[in-house]
Amino acid sequence: MNRDVAIVGVGMTKFGEHWKKGLKELITEAGVKAVEDAGISGKDIQLIVGGSMSSGMFVGQEHTGALFTDYLGLSPVPAIRTEAACASSSVALTTGTMAVQSGRYDCVVVGGVEKMTDVYGNLATTALAGAMDRDNEAHFGLTFPGVYALMAQRHMHQYGTTREQIAMVAVKNHENAMHNPNAQFHRKICVESVLKSALVSDPLRLLDCSPIADGAAALILVPAEHAKKYTDTPIYIRASSQASDTLSLYMRPDITTVGATISAVQNAYKQSGLKPEDIHFAEVHDCFTINEIIASEDLGFCKKGEGGRLVQSGETAIGGKIPINPSGGLKAKGHPVGATGAAQAVEIVEQLRGEAGGRQVKGAENGLAHNVGGSGSTVVVHMLSRNRK
Amino acid sequence: MNRDVAIVGVGMTKFGEHWKKGLKELITEAGVKAVEDAGISGKDIQLIVGGSMSSGMFVGQEHTGALFTDYLGLSPVPAIRTEAACASSSVALTTGTMAVQSGRYDCVVVGGVEKMTDVYGNLATTALAGAMDRDNEAHFGLTFPGVYALMAQRHMHQYGTTREQIAMVAVKNHENAMHNPNAQFHRKICVESVLKSALVSDPLRLLDCSPIADGAAALILVPAEHAKKYTDTPIYIRASSQASDTLSLYMRPDITTVGATISAVQNAYKQSGLKPEDIHFAEVHDCFTINEIIASEDLGFCKKGEGGRLVQSGETAIGGKIPINPSGGLKAKGHPVGATGAAQAVEIVEQLRGEAGGRQVKGAENGLAHNVGGSGSTVVVHMLSRNRK
Repeated sequence: MNRDVAIVGVGMTKFGEHWKKGLKELITEAGVKAVEDAGISGKDIQLIVGGSMSSGMFVGQEHTGALFTDYLGLSPVPAIRTEAACASSSVALTTGTMAVQSGRYDCVVVGGVEKMTDVYGNLATTALAGAMDRDNEAHFGLTFPGVYALMAQRHMHQYGTTREQIAMVAVKNHENAMHNPNAQFHRKICVESVLKSALVSDPLRLLDCSPIADGAAALILVPAEHAKKYTDTPIYIRASSQASDTLSLYMRPDITTVGATISAVQNAYKQSGLKPEDIHFAEVHDCFTINEIIASEDLGFCKKGEGGRLVQSGETAIGGKIPINPSGGLKAKGHPVGATGAAQAVEIVEQLRGEAGGRQVKGAENGLAHNVGGSGSTVVVHMLSRNRK
Repeated sequence: MNRDVAIVGVGMTKFGEHWKKGLKELITEAGVKAVEDAGISGKDIQLIVGGSMSSGMFVGQEHTGALFTDYLGLSPVPAIRTEAACASSSVALTTGTMAVQSGRYDCVVVGGVEKMTDVYGNLATTALAGAMDRDNEAHFGLTFPGVYALMAQRHMHQYGTTREQIAMVAVKNHENAMHNPNAQFHRKICVESVLKSALVSDPLRLLDCSPIADGAAALILVPAEHAKKYTDTPIYIRASSQASDTLSLYMRPDITTVGATISAVQNAYKQSGLKPEDIHFAEVHDCFTINEIIASEDLGFCKKGEGGRLVQSGETAIGGKIPINPSGGLKAKGHPVGATGAAQAVEIVEQLRGEAGGRQVKGAENGLAHNVGGSGSTVVVHMLSRNRK
């Protein structure tokens, strides 16, 4: 990287069903919290980069970058909306990072938002299908639970991953969310309750699926050399990496792995100089439980095919060797799609600052965020650290 | 700017009704043309930045960045979709420029696409309303012809701009489009035909309005210091500037001017070191005829209130002092919203290379592109030049 970038402020709304808050209220709440956390004023902000996946289909509102600027009272500050399905706000973070690296901007707000509840009929599922290849997948009846169910079936067949191991991802993430005041669910579950929940797309059941949610998250980026002016505990962006793959699942040679995760994380390890064993915890894209298992392999935390046994071993729980989703993950924290990537980064910052309360990963110095768009057509990996190098 | 950026390849589809081409076919056609024009291969490409406004609402497809990568066969190259309503692909160009400036990327494809015909019912108008403040404007029945009609009424009242002068914008732009093989319309019109066309929103009539269209455009960006490896006639990005304003028209102190245009262009003049008299021609956002008149004032080509008289004087025609919209503009070239900004840049590159055929602006060395999202909530100005400094 040309110029190191630091995060000096974070903010997010509670994730869940916000019946009294729309897109603008959510954006504004997260943005104002991040600005306050950084101790800056609106006049310091030079660029806004905001991710949302499908605000058009969900609530009829596009132009969400300018909307963000407008409701934060920041005109004429320029605003970019980025979209990459469920990775929209991680792409905002890569773009904001690039903006600081370019030398053009010294204070950038990066955010993400989605309003998914209180929308028309079954539009949420229809909108989400916009993340796959509409002509070649959705038109034939495939939905996202179906996509990930195919991946789960194959993973179970090929590696002997058990239905119980898959359920353990949800159990762990619900347990972690008990300590996250911003999480959508505060309810412990057990393996049996996952296995007895309604079948959605075999083998995935209701409690394997992340929920539809509303929410927003935001971060303040500055050049690393300015960071100590804002805070005693800046968090440094050691790697910001993104990769693509085909939109359609059927075009990939192996559906038990996500090629774009591997491309993105290998590049991120190279950028940061870190190795898998240097990562003290990770926020991973568990839109469906199986995806956390696949990601834990693709990210290098265990060998291919060992992800099921890794979660069963307890090593991905808080206190284990490589805690995954201490926030509760998409599964229990909630998954307002356009906000998820930014919220993962917020969690990592809070962990690295030692501000994560009952879900704190002790002594964590380096954290990894893994955010997926569609079935892995876009993957973004960030590595954040308490240390600049 | 930290690192100068050059355009070394351009491509676009014909604009108009593409009954046999969808989003992917349009993107691919423009992308392949740009790659061929630059004489590069897919392996050279390191990043894709693609703008589209409302592919979700128009055709149910989001995730258009990864879609672009997929159909150009470029996985795992990362892809960013930018959205800023009708300025979506100019924001892609500012973002792509920043990507090269950041030092992380040495070859970036920037593009834009929209598929607006062959969509459900009156969805196009509904989708376009997503560029305004849905809650405070669209819900009360305001549409974009209505927004620009309010601006026209006030401009006529305040500055004595005549209905005939406004019509002359359309007449000139249709004349220019006669020489543009990619234009949607090849039909001369006269002031009388504009004034007799159907009333849409008083005072604007059918021939004051840009058409709904399908199309795509793409450009290849490289660092200026590498440009001569690709072509003898690189075109340099001398300024890349963006500004925001409120989404709602009623919140602005003066609706005869677009504040974000003034912010963006002043910053662009500063970046480039150019003055209004150094600009040899401009591609200007004439989504409705009145907007070309307002923009010609806000961009500094004449005094406030003189825009109507400027078009009447003939000085904005090809051969005049400051030709505006030699391509035919949005009015006659067509306005596939997410493709418009990229297509403006393609036109400027072709003009500066001297490849614009019957619509060539002779001896042009510096051109300006002005692209508006919504009613001016986002404005992007680029200044392109044959000269690096």
